Amino acid sequence: MVHVGRAAFGGRAPVVIAGPCAVESAEQTLAIARAVRDCGGDMLRGGAFKPRTSPYEFQGLGEEGLKILAAAREETGLPVVTEVLDVRQLDLVASYADMLQIGSRSMQNYPLLTEAGRSGKPVLLKRAMSATLFEWLCAAEYIAKEGNTQIVLCERGIRSFADGEYARFSLDLNVVMAARGATYLPVIVDPSHATGRADMVPPAARAAIACGAQGLIIEVIAQDTARESVLCDRLQGIRPSTLRHLIRNLERAVPESTDAAVVV
Amino acid sequence: MVHVGRAAFGGRAPVVIAGPCAVESAEQTLAIARAVRDCGGDMLRGGAFKPRTSPYEFQGLGEEGLKILAAAREETGLPVVTEVLDVRQLDLVASYADMLQIGSRSMQNYPLLTEAGRSGKPVLLKRAMSATLFEWLCAAEYIAKEGNTQIVLCERGIRSFADGEYARFSLDLNVVMAARGATYLPVIVDPSHATGRADMVPPAARAAIACGAQGLIIEVIAQDTARESVLCDRLQGIRPSTLRHLIRNLERAVPESTDAAVVV
Amino acid sequence: MVHVGRAAFGGRAPVVIAGPCAVESAEQTLAIARAVRDCGGDMLRGGAFKPRTSPYEFQGLGEEGLKILAAAREETGLPVVTEVLDVRQLDLVASYADMLQIGSRSMQNYPLLTEAGRSGKPVLLKRAMSATLFEWLCAAEYIAKEGNTQIVLCERGIRSFADGEYARFSLDLNVVMAARGATYLPVIVDPSHATGRADMVPPAARAAIACGAQGLIIEVIAQDTARESVLCDRLQGIRPSTLRHLIRNLERAVPESTDAAVVV
Amino acid sequence: MVHVGRAAFGGRAPVVIAGPCAVESAEQTLAIARAVRDCGGDMLRGGAFKPRTSPYEFQGLGEEGLKILAAAREETGLPVVTEVLDVRQLDLVASYADMLQIGSRSMQNYPLLTEAGRSGKPVLLKRAMSATLFEWLCAAEYIAKEGNTQIVLCERGIRSFADGEYARFSLDLNVVMAARGATYLPVIVDPSHATGRADMVPPAARAAIACGAQGLIIEVIAQDTARESVLCDRLQGIRPSTLRHLIRNLERAVPESTDAAVVV
Repeated sequence: MVHVGRAAFGGRAPVVIAGPCAVESAEQTLAIARAVRDCGGDMLRGGAFKPRTSPYEFQGLGEEGLKILAAAREETGLPVVTEVLDVRQLDLVASYADMLQIGSRSMQNYPLLTEAGRSGKPVLLKRAMSATLFEWLCAAEYIAKEGNTQIVLCERGIRSFADGEYARFSLDLNVVMAARGATYLPVIVDPSHATGRADMVPPAARAAIACGAQGLIIEVIAQDTARESVLCDRLQGIRPSTLRHLIRNLERAVPESTDAAVVV
Repeated sequence: MVHVGRAAFGGRAPVVIAGPCAVESAEQTLAIARAVRDCGGDMLRGGAFKPRTSPYEFQGLGEEGLKILAAAREETGLPVVTEVLDVRQLDLVASYADMLQIGSRSMQNYPLLTEAGRSGKPVLLKRAMSATLFEWLCAAEYIAKEGNTQIVLCERGIRSFADGEYARFSLDLNVVMAARGATYLPVIVDPSHATGRADMVPPAARAAIACGAQGLIIEVIAQDTARESVLCDRLQGIRPSTLRHLIRNLERAVPESTDAAVVV
Repeated sequence: MVHVGRAAFGGRAPVVIAGPCAVESAEQTLAIARAVRDCGGDMLRGGAFKPRTSPYEFQGLGEEGLKILAAAREETGLPVVTEVLDVRQLDLVASYADMLQIGSRSMQNYPLLTEAGRSGKPVLLKRAMSATLFEWLCAAEYIAKEGNTQIVLCERGIRSFADGEYARFSLDLNVVMAARGATYLPVIVDPSHATGRADMVPPAARAAIACGAQGLIIEVIAQDTARESVLCDRLQGIRPSTLRHLIRNLERAVPESTDAAVVV
Repeated sequence: MVHVGRAAFGGRAPVVIAGPCAVESAEQTLAIARAVRDCGGDMLRGGAFKPRTSPYEFQGLGEEGLKILAAAREETGLPVVTEVLDVRQLDLVASYADMLQIGSRSMQNYPLLTEAGRSGKPVLLKRAMSATLFEWLCAAEYIAKEGNTQIVLCERGIRSFADGEYARFSLDLNVVMAARGATYLPVIVDPSHATGRADMVPPAARAAIACGAQGLIIEVIAQDTARESVLCDRLQGIRPSTLRHLIRNLERAVPESTDAAVVV
């Protein structure tokens, strides 16, 4: 099990991490953090350093964003996970965050993995968009090699021919089942990026849990925010009312027992 | 809703179709059919005409296989779905089957789709391995154009870079959610082909139902058959004891209510 | 070598098949056939039975189209290759065509492959959009098993995550090199479907020849036809003036010698 | 045009970069460098910092490797391109290299791209394994934004369903043609990684040049080295004798003129 504050990855109950794609302001972040807590979420997510496809897109608030996340933790009690992009900022991010996120684009940034291993902080390791299971587990090994085995794996959708027609990426639940059988590390799913569509997040989240995922990381936009005004991933954030409904019905999706009895 | 005997695709309860990959003998088929019925399955599947990658592999028993399926229906009361490959055999297959299966390799066999439409029989239309949603729905339209709207769509895994490492194909649940939102036709999932691994079939089946699939089609091998002796898809068939457990726990995975309340 | 009239697949000179996507009229087909001959093309292509994604799209002129192709052969002396979709029409198509085309969507239509094998006609076997090399060679084996080894393989682009952004499919030249090393059958390339863009057809054609492809099949639209008025694949047909330039420069792309001297 | 010593990317003659996958020793590197020069190569490649899937594989010689590369340049006169993985080592690498390579795994390492932009050194930007053209061009923009437009793009094979059967990756020449039409930056191809097979490197190299690539980067192993003893990518390095043959025949593959005359 990987413990981050009161959240325990790898126990029977799935861990729900939720929050904004990017920290845009103290007001936005606090409002969403309170909603996450009220809906029953276990941890807060939010990006202060954002890896954006174009250099002309919003790149995150940087340290200012980290301070906002810390303040949100202070008020809500939710542990915070946030992405680190740059080895030179790792100490800074680690000084604010409860868990370091290595994003998809950084899954094979080996210097960053090594430093995350040395930080002693729990690490959320997202799968790269076209990483094999072997490559993903080897990336975890770069962290573990430094003596840090507080690693949680996160599937977030793969690139396939189908991308762009009805979803942003292809949610790959086969890899969740395979990873569960190949490693003791907890495995969670990001239904927000794996679908890219707010309406698909609740069913994708249930499916992930139903096949053995041990948690979720979900993007949330404030209840009354105009979707067009969101600075990042605006089509995939769900509203707090949806999050509440999703968490309330999640327990039902947890498998009753392991499939250990399966006669192969 | 699409009705095949007592099975109703599109109602609240998922329809479970199960049976051997290929009809190999009367004994094998009857034993499995009885097990499917006893486990709570709704329909029997089994191939008499098999589309095999190599011409030197077992190609199915042909009409003899159809007769065995009919006898199994006689005894168990389970309606039968079986694949038709060749327009010239469509009348023959339709005279034995309760539902015609159009396999993945035939999804764009337009003459076959047209004849299936004219047959008046319910049709199970599997998605091709790399079909877009648009292509899949257009294939259904070839059937519907002939006046036959008794069509059930079936997702069975797609080709992606990940195939072969930890699963045979990539189960694409995003397309299930998208198809549910794009058509009134019922959508089911084949977790046997989508994973290719018996141990992944139960979690994949639960995940499919949890995200809105309205049924399953599952390959079964007899409880005491040596896996090596099975003539077709031997790694993915589950045992009746696993099927029983899977069906018993399936109700739990059905979403409590629609996600209609989602505020987008 | 596979001989179709005066065209010889597998010799040093690449065979160029060219013609309209679909036979739309006698005038259109004759005009294009004359241009193909004048540009130095070796064979005429053109679809009389068209496998279209939607049933509401133009489906081809049927036997009328076959007659037009035969008339174009009569006048130009170019042998004709045309697609057969339906086993029931195989004898009809074979009575007009010099070579039968099995399209991508039919690559695993095993009854059709078997009948093509029995026809005794040379067969152009296109690779399915996501077929492995093994599946493609096994499809050829269905034809060869009937005693017909006059088979030419044709790569026509695969489905990948990249489709739709800058090209229609992904031209897979690695499979051309691999097929050349795995079978004695000649291998040609369809740069029209593999790119879906008229401007990419000449460079893709040169690349195919440069890596060992033994021929090309190219879609042509008449010099003065408005692209919008073409009934099928209107973005990928090249003009005769482009075809002339392409064929004139093709010899240069043929490898000077085999790579047999490579020390591995 | 991008100039690196005497090499000019973007002129009529393709630039050939060649050298070992990894710098393993002074002897190995010098022997290969001399061979590259003697075969007519324009630049030397070789990795001192290697991004390896597993932390237990050979990680490169580090600064010692950079010194060996500099010595090889000294003797042969060939400009050197080598990969930089870590922002903290960028100044070090830049002090030895003539051109910085950003590898596939780092294509979206935005801090590294920014520092490469600030370095003022020419940059070889490899495409990530599943990057869209848009993402690739945006990555280049991170470099250009810092005022450095000395950027060469390099296609190196994409992830597709076909990987692993007959090649390591799928060579994507469509993106080369598309990039040529979308940017003024020179575009080269890495046939070694795109195929993963020494026997496919020469035909893939010719194909790349034939469709408009403006250079190649090729892995070489010494003429008499046992393939099994190579520490990195041992199946894809070609021998100097093959390189000589390849370069000698390359001119023939260069398109005679642009396709500008194409009437679309």
